[in-house]
Amino acid sequence: MTELPFEQVRTLLAVVDEGTFEAAAEALHVTPSAVSQRIKTLEQRTGRVLLMRTKPVRPTESGQVVLRFARQLATLEGEVWAELGIAGRPGPARLPIAVNADSLATWFLPALARVPRDPPVCFDLYREDEAHTAALLREGQVMAAVTSAAQPVAGCLVRPLGLARYLPVAAPRFAARHLSDGPLERSLPEAPVIVFDRRDELQDRFVRTLTSGRTGAARYRHHVPSSEGFCDAVAAGLGWGLVPEPQARPLLRSGALVEPAPGRKMDVPLYWQQWKLDVPALALAAETIAAAAAGSLYPPQ
Amino acid sequence: MTELPFEQVRTLLAVVDEGTFEAAAEALHVTPSAVSQRIKTLEQRTGRVLLMRTKPVRPTESGQVVLRFARQLATLEGEVWAELGIAGRPGPARLPIAVNADSLATWFLPALARVPRDPPVCFDLYREDEAHTAALLREGQVMAAVTSAAQPVAGCLVRPLGLARYLPVAAPRFAARHLSDGPLERSLPEAPVIVFDRRDELQDRFVRTLTSGRTGAARYRHHVPSSEGFCDAVAAGLGWGLVPEPQARPLLRSGALVEPAPGRKMDVPLYWQQWKLDVPALALAAETIAAAAAGSLYPPQ
Repeated sequence: MTELPFEQVRTLLAVVDEGTFEAAAEALHVTPSAVSQRIKTLEQRTGRVLLMRTKPVRPTESGQVVLRFARQLATLEGEVWAELGIAGRPGPARLPIAVNADSLATWFLPALARVPRDPPVCFDLYREDEAHTAALLREGQVMAAVTSAAQPVAGCLVRPLGLARYLPVAAPRFAARHLSDGPLERSLPEAPVIVFDRRDELQDRFVRTLTSGRTGAARYRHHVPSSEGFCDAVAAGLGWGLVPEPQARPLLRSGALVEPAPGRKMDVPLYWQQWKLDVPALALAAETIAAAAAGSLYPPQ
Repeated sequence: MTELPFEQVRTLLAVVDEGTFEAAAEALHVTPSAVSQRIKTLEQRTGRVLLMRTKPVRPTESGQVVLRFARQLATLEGEVWAELGIAGRPGPARLPIAVNADSLATWFLPALARVPRDPPVCFDLYREDEAHTAALLREGQVMAAVTSAAQPVAGCLVRPLGLARYLPVAAPRFAARHLSDGPLERSLPEAPVIVFDRRDELQDRFVRTLTSGRTGAARYRHHVPSSEGFCDAVAAGLGWGLVPEPQARPLLRSGALVEPAPGRKMDVPLYWQQWKLDVPALALAAETIAAAAAGSLYPPQ
């Protein structure tokens, strides 16, 4: 990797960030054909196609590896400027981190507020989308992620943070209408359910556990892709759902929600994935966030 | 459009929804080469390339138009089954709607809970991403959207819903540290700011209004792409930001937030965009949501 020509690597980064060869050319103050030539040379050098020529262009798997290198390079350069105390430094350090929506809505921001911000650091959060987080890490768009994916992404370290607990809850009048007739194993699979998005399988997994696998996915599903919107939709009586314990507790106490299956819960393990790269600001954030997670989540098994 | 062969149109829909020709073939119980042949025929018939052969495949602009037609067709078919009261009906009506994050976190879900659900209807919400909402509407992935985009998307009707009000707020100790020294026109542009994501220009617009356009974008920015996470980040003292009035009011009352520029605000007009198609469930939802918006938002100018 050390023999990759930096100018071409930076050009690849500009093309992906700007979306087109033309926009990258403008950003780099060169002609589009110079951009095109540099990418071709880089592809010949690596022996791989690095970009899909779509609009906007998208990196191939090989392209993602080179991109991560480009972004790590830019971060290390920033560190050098900071350590040298050079005035022309382009601004505060940037820490791009992907976070799953429920963590973002519960324990993550109080944790982030505890990360020392001297020297100044900007947090650049991405709401984790399971499907994209691996790609964001792989191409170095984010330096780290709070994710339910245990498998380390190529080029990343992984450490367990703890278990996020979810409680099955419903509004009282919803429970009275849909869940009071006969055993829960029969009524719950037939009742309207709130799910986060198409990839959210937590509710279906809970139903399978409850019915020992005898039932398929609920037919009557609302999709509410927002952590607090999800909780609001349950409280508004649109359906039942598994709500993070920190959001559910106050509403259970006030009577806005009830537990149709008292004592039942689902625990989801969360992990911290980060670049294998010695960036002091990242190491400091990782320690603070892991300590806060230990205080907010249940211990990993 | 009426002479488009339905089988080929449905095949196009399956390919886009499943992501690959192979997965579509499996879903439709035909061979991949049959799928490929149908798409080719449809492209010859329309004289346009309809799909980019990426992984997953993506519709071209022309492909989006045919896709909207395909989804509208599927919806109308569903209506026919419902009206005929046919038992083999595939399930409750589906209402896919895109909603901007701040509406989803404030007035939208209580509004949605008021939409009559007899006959049964499933709400399939997409968190609006300005950049994608137009495409979602254009290709018919959603039937309607709550959006700040006033320009009607091709094939859609637009109506104003009202003005969402945002208040510039900060945590008390943040204001004391960053905003108490000299006039706000000088201190605010230098202070750390929370912005939703890269496309969020609300804070920058507020600073330009405050300084009569003399200042550029803040250098010290945190990106927090979650409506409640945004409010939490401001309350945690990470930066100042413009928070929706319904979220800001209780925190201002409790003293968790202060207004560095009392009386200042930003109003963002919101619109309802929907298919030009007579679907009763959609019409009912549109009326209920518009009425609720009129009760929660400020009147449009």
